[in-house]
Amino acid sequence: MTQDQDPTEVLRSLRQSIDNLDASLVLLLAERFKLTKQVGNLKKEHALPPSDKGREADMIDRLRRLAADAQLDPDFAEKFIRFVIDEVIRHHERIKQSADT
Amino acid sequence: MTQDQDPTEVLRSLRQSIDNLDASLVLLLAERFKLTKQVGNLKKEHALPPSDKGREADMIDRLRRLAADAQLDPDFAEKFIRFVIDEVIRHHERIKQSADT
Repeated sequence: MTQDQDPTEVLRSLRQSIDNLDASLVLLLAERFKLTKQVGNLKKEHALPPSDKGREADMIDRLRRLAADAQLDPDFAEKFIRFVIDEVIRHHERIKQSADT
Repeated sequence: MTQDQDPTEVLRSLRQSIDNLDASLVLLLAERFKLTKQVGNLKKEHALPPSDKGREADMIDRLRRLAADAQLDPDFAEKFIRFVIDEVIRHHERIKQSADT
């Protein structure tokens, strides 16, 4: 920020960019859940367990490295992906239960 | 999935797409934190409070609508954005403390 910029205007502009990124994040999450729904249905058809610890560990390692390269706190990246995975597991368990009843 | 597709191959392909989306999500989050760091510094310079409940409520309303349009559970979208905002507030409080000491 240069000295002659109005801070209110700078804040407004930063917030607009944050809003654009948030919209992109939500749309990518929507797409991710469409894919994991397909994975859930596939697991139901073939009686596979809802979670897969080996794959989770690999995903977390890869995303931690990617975060570090992008100057994002790797612990936050891990917390984020665990938050998403936990939601997916809840969805898969619901799909499995709907098959059992 | 058609009958003649190998389910292992289908699962592999879905997981590759999920991994690509996760990489995109982490990179967008990295960019979002670069912007909120700038917001934090601006708030520090002008002694503004770390959180802004009015803006948060507007962001959540907008993202819930966007999620619903994209067939993503609006409650999950809200949980996600609150998770990100909580992390940002922790960052801003650290920036503020570093100014106080």
